[in-house]
Amino acid sequence: MTYRVGIINVTGFAGMEAARLLWGHPQARISSVTGRSLAGQKLGEAFPHLACYGDMPITAEIEGDVDIVFSAMPTAASAAACAPFVRAGIPVVDIAADFRLKDPAEFEKWMGQPHPAPELLAQAVYGLPELNRAAIAGARLVANPGCYPAASILALAPAVASGIVDTQIVVDAKSGISGAGRGTGGSYGYAEVNEDVSAYKVAAHNHQPEIAQELAALRETGPVKVTFVPHLVPMTRGIHATCYAALKPGVSQAEVNAIYRDFYHDAPFTRVVDTPPHTKHTLGNNMCLVNPTVDLRNGMLVAIGVLDNLVKGAAGQAIENMNLMLGLPQTAGLDLPAVYP
Amino acid sequence: MTYRVGIINVTGFAGMEAARLLWGHPQARISSVTGRSLAGQKLGEAFPHLACYGDMPITAEIEGDVDIVFSAMPTAASAAACAPFVRAGIPVVDIAADFRLKDPAEFEKWMGQPHPAPELLAQAVYGLPELNRAAIAGARLVANPGCYPAASILALAPAVASGIVDTQIVVDAKSGISGAGRGTGGSYGYAEVNEDVSAYKVAAHNHQPEIAQELAALRETGPVKVTFVPHLVPMTRGIHATCYAALKPGVSQAEVNAIYRDFYHDAPFTRVVDTPPHTKHTLGNNMCLVNPTVDLRNGMLVAIGVLDNLVKGAAGQAIENMNLMLGLPQTAGLDLPAVYP
Amino acid sequence: MTYRVGIINVTGFAGMEAARLLWGHPQARISSVTGRSLAGQKLGEAFPHLACYGDMPITAEIEGDVDIVFSAMPTAASAAACAPFVRAGIPVVDIAADFRLKDPAEFEKWMGQPHPAPELLAQAVYGLPELNRAAIAGARLVANPGCYPAASILALAPAVASGIVDTQIVVDAKSGISGAGRGTGGSYGYAEVNEDVSAYKVAAHNHQPEIAQELAALRETGPVKVTFVPHLVPMTRGIHATCYAALKPGVSQAEVNAIYRDFYHDAPFTRVVDTPPHTKHTLGNNMCLVNPTVDLRNGMLVAIGVLDNLVKGAAGQAIENMNLMLGLPQTAGLDLPAVYP
Amino acid sequence: MTYRVGIINVTGFAGMEAARLLWGHPQARISSVTGRSLAGQKLGEAFPHLACYGDMPITAEIEGDVDIVFSAMPTAASAAACAPFVRAGIPVVDIAADFRLKDPAEFEKWMGQPHPAPELLAQAVYGLPELNRAAIAGARLVANPGCYPAASILALAPAVASGIVDTQIVVDAKSGISGAGRGTGGSYGYAEVNEDVSAYKVAAHNHQPEIAQELAALRETGPVKVTFVPHLVPMTRGIHATCYAALKPGVSQAEVNAIYRDFYHDAPFTRVVDTPPHTKHTLGNNMCLVNPTVDLRNGMLVAIGVLDNLVKGAAGQAIENMNLMLGLPQTAGLDLPAVYP
Repeated sequence: MTYRVGIINVTGFAGMEAARLLWGHPQARISSVTGRSLAGQKLGEAFPHLACYGDMPITAEIEGDVDIVFSAMPTAASAAACAPFVRAGIPVVDIAADFRLKDPAEFEKWMGQPHPAPELLAQAVYGLPELNRAAIAGARLVANPGCYPAASILALAPAVASGIVDTQIVVDAKSGISGAGRGTGGSYGYAEVNEDVSAYKVAAHNHQPEIAQELAALRETGPVKVTFVPHLVPMTRGIHATCYAALKPGVSQAEVNAIYRDFYHDAPFTRVVDTPPHTKHTLGNNMCLVNPTVDLRNGMLVAIGVLDNLVKGAAGQAIENMNLMLGLPQTAGLDLPAVYP
Repeated sequence: MTYRVGIINVTGFAGMEAARLLWGHPQARISSVTGRSLAGQKLGEAFPHLACYGDMPITAEIEGDVDIVFSAMPTAASAAACAPFVRAGIPVVDIAADFRLKDPAEFEKWMGQPHPAPELLAQAVYGLPELNRAAIAGARLVANPGCYPAASILALAPAVASGIVDTQIVVDAKSGISGAGRGTGGSYGYAEVNEDVSAYKVAAHNHQPEIAQELAALRETGPVKVTFVPHLVPMTRGIHATCYAALKPGVSQAEVNAIYRDFYHDAPFTRVVDTPPHTKHTLGNNMCLVNPTVDLRNGMLVAIGVLDNLVKGAAGQAIENMNLMLGLPQTAGLDLPAVYP
Repeated sequence: MTYRVGIINVTGFAGMEAARLLWGHPQARISSVTGRSLAGQKLGEAFPHLACYGDMPITAEIEGDVDIVFSAMPTAASAAACAPFVRAGIPVVDIAADFRLKDPAEFEKWMGQPHPAPELLAQAVYGLPELNRAAIAGARLVANPGCYPAASILALAPAVASGIVDTQIVVDAKSGISGAGRGTGGSYGYAEVNEDVSAYKVAAHNHQPEIAQELAALRETGPVKVTFVPHLVPMTRGIHATCYAALKPGVSQAEVNAIYRDFYHDAPFTRVVDTPPHTKHTLGNNMCLVNPTVDLRNGMLVAIGVLDNLVKGAAGQAIENMNLMLGLPQTAGLDLPAVYP
Repeated sequence: MTYRVGIINVTGFAGMEAARLLWGHPQARISSVTGRSLAGQKLGEAFPHLACYGDMPITAEIEGDVDIVFSAMPTAASAAACAPFVRAGIPVVDIAADFRLKDPAEFEKWMGQPHPAPELLAQAVYGLPELNRAAIAGARLVANPGCYPAASILALAPAVASGIVDTQIVVDAKSGISGAGRGTGGSYGYAEVNEDVSAYKVAAHNHQPEIAQELAALRETGPVKVTFVPHLVPMTRGIHATCYAALKPGVSQAEVNAIYRDFYHDAPFTRVVDTPPHTKHTLGNNMCLVNPTVDLRNGMLVAIGVLDNLVKGAAGQAIENMNLMLGLPQTAGLDLPAVYP
């Protein structure tokens, strides 16, 4: 059987990346794509890199029957797009941030507006299979993780879950510019962004509570404090999260290595490596590379996670979640080398 | 004496680059800057790289007396900004394209609108000192060359003037993205432009008639045909013009070298070099590097010109013209190494 | 049946790109890879982006039986690596330049050394399926085109073959830095190459005779003169060839479009497009996008070809040739969207 | 009077940047430059961006009398180059790391070799004028700070000196590739480094003890623990240091702002700004921009420092130190806008 996938808002970077990756999926194919600004155009013409899709129309609404829906709408607009499908019993993966925070008050605090569909929050599952594989498999509504949280949580989860670190955590994250989205050139023009590094939303980015929520869930002994500082670096794709937490006394590098490898021993897309990983080694594929280093002099753990923000940080993760929700092999369509150099 | 300079539209890349360069000028200083979108703000705060200017206000119109005016307005809006100063007898350098084409019909054909001030065209002098030094020194209105024409004309002028090449010419030009101007991110977002080369306005760019006009003036034996194809390359600054013209039979590399070196022997900012030049060797300064190569097998001259589009291709050239118009040393304020790497 | 592929010198960019692409091939798999500097290491560890290959060893020589061999050795060293397989009747695709020029004297003139295996030249077929599909299907030794020639020939072939242009041709080509090969950092260090455009080997690059040879073969009425100037631009992958040739009088844009579309109507990997193509729209896949524009004012054809130098310009082309040689569908393993942005 | 400057090893990035900046110095000029690999060549030809220097020879040793010497030799080789001048009473600024760590045992521990001139360590002054202006003015041997320490110490000094933060500090630093030095392409080739972020020498870089030493000196109440993780980002110039330290309870953003502004109120090259600064706003000039943010939720100070690693992080700092040592105005030759965009 080939499952039919609908993509809401295929015209953003995450939506078009889902289209790119689904082209090679052995058991799923796109049957309908929406994009209001380009409705009436053809997918293969609007986006020349997707010419393989030829005449597939971009429509204003999902058309025909679909077996699963991805929403790549902007945050706060996505819930309304997802709701009809959820209510109709069709599996939904929301790539936006609408269903990630479990507490609607937190959503309102960080997004600056009331949650658009609080009645659906209870059934939403946070879509990081390394933590929640079974729950995702049984879910009808999956909240796909943010790109920064995906890298940060995967870097920190073994340490937090095992209790070897304190819960005052620093996450210093670096992102390629595609994370800012398509058509956001006004602030992200090439001439301005090239040859520049800058921080933004210092300790005020809405991915901070998402990271804190998921790490706390691993711990079950109280909150985790996360200072999160995102930076833009001049590259197109890639997230590099460098995470710092004080180690409990006496924890060795060997113990940390063992804890990390054990935690991810059956995770097909998170690999623990022995040297600092390069974002470029994940370009275009669904891998997250994790590297923990013990700073013995200072009793600090430095845990690094890298991934492609549009793949493991968005569209690839959505397909991985789809695979689990539909009972397909977790790696179906995602077993790809990275593009290097 | 220190001359007072007014800059109309300091908020574009060319205008702010003029401010950067004039900071170090020994005999001129900025006394008034305009920029409607930022009027009321301070130059040193609106543009942190110009913090040295501190509290200098950005105003809606030039304020106080000025000894010379630069207009960095968009093409077609610039003539109206220049006209009052020209009529008042104040020297003007127009960095836009309004006064470059001598024939108002050509302006209308290429710009798609009637010339905004045809009555001023006769007194405008094309501001390329390598060709027109004396005329510039006597001018009240100087049309600063376009960035592509500056590189292309300087690469070709010795060959065309000496008659060693045919007049069917190809100019293949590569430009950094700052040439597209500030705040044009919509089409020039980092994620879209990075890792990409593309041509645009193939044989349809309004710098084509500008190049043809100035080359024909060197020749005085009829028109010059120029096929001009600009390309965007992923860097911030720099123009690389690669020019092709059939050589008259029997012209040797040594003769070409001699013709080129002789032509520029007293040009302080155009240097003939023996190997293909790098745009990066002109980053931030007013140099144009020129390299002619004879393709003996095919009887073709390959003449390369490189420069910084915002300096020799815009603001530096404007200051060089100012120096000549005010009777200052041609190199005043412009005697700078390039920034490398 | 799954064919076994051997890759000689998997450690260069072309070799490792072949490994990346073959991972997803439905009817072929790598069975042996060589790389003397890394012999004894594992492919998936030496190159983290190829971690999917796990423990596959890199050996000094091809080991075990193979059904086809790719050589990604440096030019002039490749012939010796290919020869034993050719003699043993095993199909070989040579990604280097050893078998591209049909005249060994031309090889010696441009490479500066005698041809290493002139006795094999007669059986070598130039591996550009858009021109030579049938011959490739019957060949035992295929000379994979150079990256610049692939883009240039595909841009020009319809015009040259149909006789609508003169045979004095200019090819101005821009390449990403990966074209210079792996480990060539000395001259291609990031700090030196970034924010720079420069030409090199002006009218002296060994891809010039390759382009001229193949264009002349389309014509059969005498030689074609090609002035070829390659440039390095600051990006990793991509070739943009801008080609200029005088049009025969009276040829219209519509006629040119028809000739081009007809020429490539059954070519799966060369698509004629209506606007100037972007290299980025081919990143990571095997497409060549071609765009011809008539410069009516000057009677000139501007024909652009873009592709990924490591895919259609190297490893992807090699797999396409393999498919033809082995009787597989031409697009097997290569039916991929590009990676964008 | 014009002071004569000698530059030992002008052929590295720091040395050539000193030459670039000294060109415009009103009271100093280069009189001799060395560079063994290029000895016998001319400075203006070996480095086209320094063509203004024309025929100045590159020699094997400093020639003629000099009033001050900069050494831009590699670390561990620099001390031997400096020693004769120090002993002769000629002022020396060592741009390398030889005289930065006051304890020769620390040097040996981090550099892996004994200190080459321990007898000179006592007289060396750490050349960060924001901390040590008077001592620098009286010194004969100044140890120019490393690029990472310059940014990190300037970001943290007001907080550490005032005692508002704990002494367990994290410094997450991002550097452009020029920090790796010239001719280091093997590991820093464009194709490998472009579109990539990676950490290196995690908690093991020799700038860590330098930062810790200077911060501890501000405090005088025991050691400071610094976890330092440097990252390479794909740009040529720029350092972005993001520093984290737990705030003492109750310290407000307003108090922090006041402490920072007071600390730097008379520092000409360190400016406290209200929003996260961009490295690009310091490109080519001697500024360091500092921004402290209080993360109230977590009781954490996030202090950012940005600068150009070759200017305030190397050659510009050396000139600033020279100015102080020679009794010149601190800003002489360094009062420059940044190059933007």
